[in-house]
Amino acid sequence: MQIGMIGLGKMGANLSLNLMEHNHAVVAFDVNKEAVKTLEEQGAVGAHSIEELVKKLEKPKVAWVMVPAGDLTEKVINELQGLLDEGDIIIDGGNSKYQDSVRRAEKAHQKGIHFFDVGTSGGMEGARNGACMMIGGDKEAFAHIEPIFKDINVEKGYLYAGDAGSGHFLKMVHNGIEYGMMQAIAEGFDVLQKSQFDYDYEAVARVWNNGSVIRSWLIELMERAFSKDPRLDDIRGVMHSSGEGKWTVESALDLQVPTPVIALSLMMRYRSLEDDTFTGKVVAALRNEFGGHAVEKK
Amino acid sequence: MQIGMIGLGKMGANLSLNLMEHNHAVVAFDVNKEAVKTLEEQGAVGAHSIEELVKKLEKPKVAWVMVPAGDLTEKVINELQGLLDEGDIIIDGGNSKYQDSVRRAEKAHQKGIHFFDVGTSGGMEGARNGACMMIGGDKEAFAHIEPIFKDINVEKGYLYAGDAGSGHFLKMVHNGIEYGMMQAIAEGFDVLQKSQFDYDYEAVARVWNNGSVIRSWLIELMERAFSKDPRLDDIRGVMHSSGEGKWTVESALDLQVPTPVIALSLMMRYRSLEDDTFTGKVVAALRNEFGGHAVEKK
Amino acid sequence: MQIGMIGLGKMGANLSLNLMEHNHAVVAFDVNKEAVKTLEEQGAVGAHSIEELVKKLEKPKVAWVMVPAGDLTEKVINELQGLLDEGDIIIDGGNSKYQDSVRRAEKAHQKGIHFFDVGTSGGMEGARNGACMMIGGDKEAFAHIEPIFKDINVEKGYLYAGDAGSGHFLKMVHNGIEYGMMQAIAEGFDVLQKSQFDYDYEAVARVWNNGSVIRSWLIELMERAFSKDPRLDDIRGVMHSSGEGKWTVESALDLQVPTPVIALSLMMRYRSLEDDTFTGKVVAALRNEFGGHAVEKK
Amino acid sequence: MQIGMIGLGKMGANLSLNLMEHNHAVVAFDVNKEAVKTLEEQGAVGAHSIEELVKKLEKPKVAWVMVPAGDLTEKVINELQGLLDEGDIIIDGGNSKYQDSVRRAEKAHQKGIHFFDVGTSGGMEGARNGACMMIGGDKEAFAHIEPIFKDINVEKGYLYAGDAGSGHFLKMVHNGIEYGMMQAIAEGFDVLQKSQFDYDYEAVARVWNNGSVIRSWLIELMERAFSKDPRLDDIRGVMHSSGEGKWTVESALDLQVPTPVIALSLMMRYRSLEDDTFTGKVVAALRNEFGGHAVEKK
Repeated sequence: MQIGMIGLGKMGANLSLNLMEHNHAVVAFDVNKEAVKTLEEQGAVGAHSIEELVKKLEKPKVAWVMVPAGDLTEKVINELQGLLDEGDIIIDGGNSKYQDSVRRAEKAHQKGIHFFDVGTSGGMEGARNGACMMIGGDKEAFAHIEPIFKDINVEKGYLYAGDAGSGHFLKMVHNGIEYGMMQAIAEGFDVLQKSQFDYDYEAVARVWNNGSVIRSWLIELMERAFSKDPRLDDIRGVMHSSGEGKWTVESALDLQVPTPVIALSLMMRYRSLEDDTFTGKVVAALRNEFGGHAVEKK
Repeated sequence: MQIGMIGLGKMGANLSLNLMEHNHAVVAFDVNKEAVKTLEEQGAVGAHSIEELVKKLEKPKVAWVMVPAGDLTEKVINELQGLLDEGDIIIDGGNSKYQDSVRRAEKAHQKGIHFFDVGTSGGMEGARNGACMMIGGDKEAFAHIEPIFKDINVEKGYLYAGDAGSGHFLKMVHNGIEYGMMQAIAEGFDVLQKSQFDYDYEAVARVWNNGSVIRSWLIELMERAFSKDPRLDDIRGVMHSSGEGKWTVESALDLQVPTPVIALSLMMRYRSLEDDTFTGKVVAALRNEFGGHAVEKK
Repeated sequence: MQIGMIGLGKMGANLSLNLMEHNHAVVAFDVNKEAVKTLEEQGAVGAHSIEELVKKLEKPKVAWVMVPAGDLTEKVINELQGLLDEGDIIIDGGNSKYQDSVRRAEKAHQKGIHFFDVGTSGGMEGARNGACMMIGGDKEAFAHIEPIFKDINVEKGYLYAGDAGSGHFLKMVHNGIEYGMMQAIAEGFDVLQKSQFDYDYEAVARVWNNGSVIRSWLIELMERAFSKDPRLDDIRGVMHSSGEGKWTVESALDLQVPTPVIALSLMMRYRSLEDDTFTGKVVAALRNEFGGHAVEKK
Repeated sequence: MQIGMIGLGKMGANLSLNLMEHNHAVVAFDVNKEAVKTLEEQGAVGAHSIEELVKKLEKPKVAWVMVPAGDLTEKVINELQGLLDEGDIIIDGGNSKYQDSVRRAEKAHQKGIHFFDVGTSGGMEGARNGACMMIGGDKEAFAHIEPIFKDINVEKGYLYAGDAGSGHFLKMVHNGIEYGMMQAIAEGFDVLQKSQFDYDYEAVARVWNNGSVIRSWLIELMERAFSKDPRLDDIRGVMHSSGEGKWTVESALDLQVPTPVIALSLMMRYRSLEDDTFTGKVVAALRNEFGGHAVEKK
């Protein structure tokens, strides 16, 4: 099949290579001309604009959007909306908010364009060698593009999840779970680290990955991380986040689902962004007022 | 009545003054001779040892222990146990663990000594001018000492709570609630502080104390604290703790009571003691491994 | 001063009486004609539509909106926007979302109408006898209406908080703190209730209100509640919520402020709405799969 | 090698079969005579008392204790302590509290007996076909028994973790992480279940296990569970617990490590044991007192 890939960052470039390796033709566009050139050298047909990319696609045209979620994705999809026709297909493979995907699908649908929201997991490695994708959109039209998903994902690594929005929603929840698992693992190692015992963390991660209940890819990754930096001495414990965890908590609040673990995982990330907190100052001031407990001066 | 006060720190000294102001005679002992001398000048009879203090008391002797909880309280009570006789009274006014109080009461009881565990709230101000006390111990014997509690507490500010241990347990839970309230107030001010608005925190605390649902002594204390340091610029947000919050959570776990608010209040205190965390390092390392997210180097 | 009160529910009716008691004239409207009639009998001038209410007001006209937040408030304010002129004043005394208030103030401002967002605390009692109000809006115009706030609130019980939106934001955060305090108090009583001791909860609430660190209006209310139903045997522990707690958490997430206590207070409320949970089923199923732990069949 | 297995429950019996399959001789004892007989039929030498079991072992004798943690383990180890001599070996393979293991190792050491605390993960399947074991104790003596661990665990599935107690501590933390992971997964499925979409949970678990970041044995188990009961309609969401999660939180509190995720996972389990809560009643009563919010009557 022929796919137009818009956005050749870490994920888009690797996905393109993955597609070509499986004998799909890729028409590639990025605002970064170097990225287009690099991909041309690896077998893609380059395009210098979205318009050109669409022109180079055969009917039914399949445009895969792999740009940062938010304004940029909105802009690209709006442009595609104008350029594509009935029966054509837009795939949003980014981390879009599921409500946006529901809205975009409805709008595309008015012109007869099929819209698919595709949540992608597995990181860059996955994009290159076999990812995991969760797909929402029109079920009948999905049959047309299913072969692509079969090729670029690991075995059993894609799921048609349901109506438009269900792909990004599922990916969002996946990331919420990921936040919780990561914090759980991290708390465990923190307890080990402050204990009276002297553990070899790499060995601990290794043994947990061989036969224990918590064996998982995340702990495999910890084994790898500890093999490079046994005590993580070289890095700071600043935990950034990119949105899906927050959206999961917001969705949980909207649905009135108690999600203490996912919410706290997110909040501990926020806490890690600050050296000192106003919360702490208020509590310290209160203790000083009622109990004469000394406060630490700056 | 005549009371032997053992321990003349912030709380013990103020309580002694409070007792004397209400025409009770105080025999005072502390390992710090200066503290004894100061109190003698204010009307107390000084003692240079627990033994001497006990000798100077009339039957039934009432010994009030006001020393740091733990080993020191254990030592003092053990010594008193040897010096006192049937019908005498030991009052532990410190922040002892309730299980210790249950045990000490049983031991005292074997010799016919009455043991009371008294949780004291209200800070130094309260100790001096009218505190709040929660009392566990033998109900009949309590009648004998009740007049003391009527005098040194604010009106309706003491409670015979039940069997031995119930006073310290109640004070422990009081402190657990205090942790939760303080953290709730602090989180609120933190949200205000990061908001797009420019609040006068002292004025905010004042208006909340006049007619709102959350009016409380703690917010009165915040009003006072903000009047001295409007943005708490001078202090660090390090939140120490002294045990009762932890005991409350441990008791809740033993009783299988979910106490997320008290537990998290405590854990955020622990978090504030660290500049960087191993938890944070593990999460940052994981994000780097699977997503190529940059870690912050030290 | 003359005030047009729109919405005569629990809060609006009590506020109207409060205003009239302080010699302010009230023009009153509600879709419920009975409510209008009742208030007419107590001295108000009735109106049968918002249009009529506006006509009956003298310049500069002051319209106080006291209807449920959301669509209804939007509708009423939009209607007022059309009927009022430059220099007139809209007061939204409901629990509106602060973002809505910012937007409404901007829109009103375009026509020269002053918009004030007023968060009200203190419950029905407060509305009737002296409330606590947090006010956002134009500072200069506030001088004109300040006398009203001085009259209907308890002493020091109102605050001009800043720009439009700051009143509802402050009230929102107030409610967030309220959620945390309530949950903290409730957890404490739950620990008492499962303990080995046999407490008189009304007496506990009373002693805590007299001299302790946690003395507060909320614990006074618990004293009152326990005086009516000593063990709360007659009610179910279903904890409803009305929005501001959720908004506080959402704002905290937007501002990246960790608010574990407020968030968990809200989530425990959601948990109380369910008899059984899918979360619980998943964990029970997992324990069964790996450990052969028995699951409880329905 | 020859091993004396004390306790032939789910874990002990399966471990015995596993040992015999790897050509180790097993002398087996349980208070349940049927269990001994069953194992005799499968190749073990039976014993009718711990004394007899010890007699049947050759020097250095290796006794593996696989009985419920707590009093029973204490009793069995005390008895072994009397029957064994210098150079003999006690292995506690149960879920003992690590502090108990430290104490027992010290006591055994006084008589020259080697004590190993072995935390076992992997469930019954693991015990039978290859488990994961974390081992604390004397390093030199470990060399003697290492071949056993090599045989009965999956490849790389055992770790000599350090001094006495470090095995059970590591297993305890493993279980704490397990609690957090399970709750994270469960919260995610709960959000899916209350969403507007209609997911096939078994298919969701399957796709997550193929290429996603959260692929793990636990989600494999969910795939299995959903394949049997697609919506978990047949079971109740009651989440029991067996101690290690609680110990992890208690250890974290002792070490002042914030572990919000593990703590909340545990507390949500406790919450699931109750149909109604006193916490909920207190909050409902408060809302009724200040806002006139209706309470739900029983």
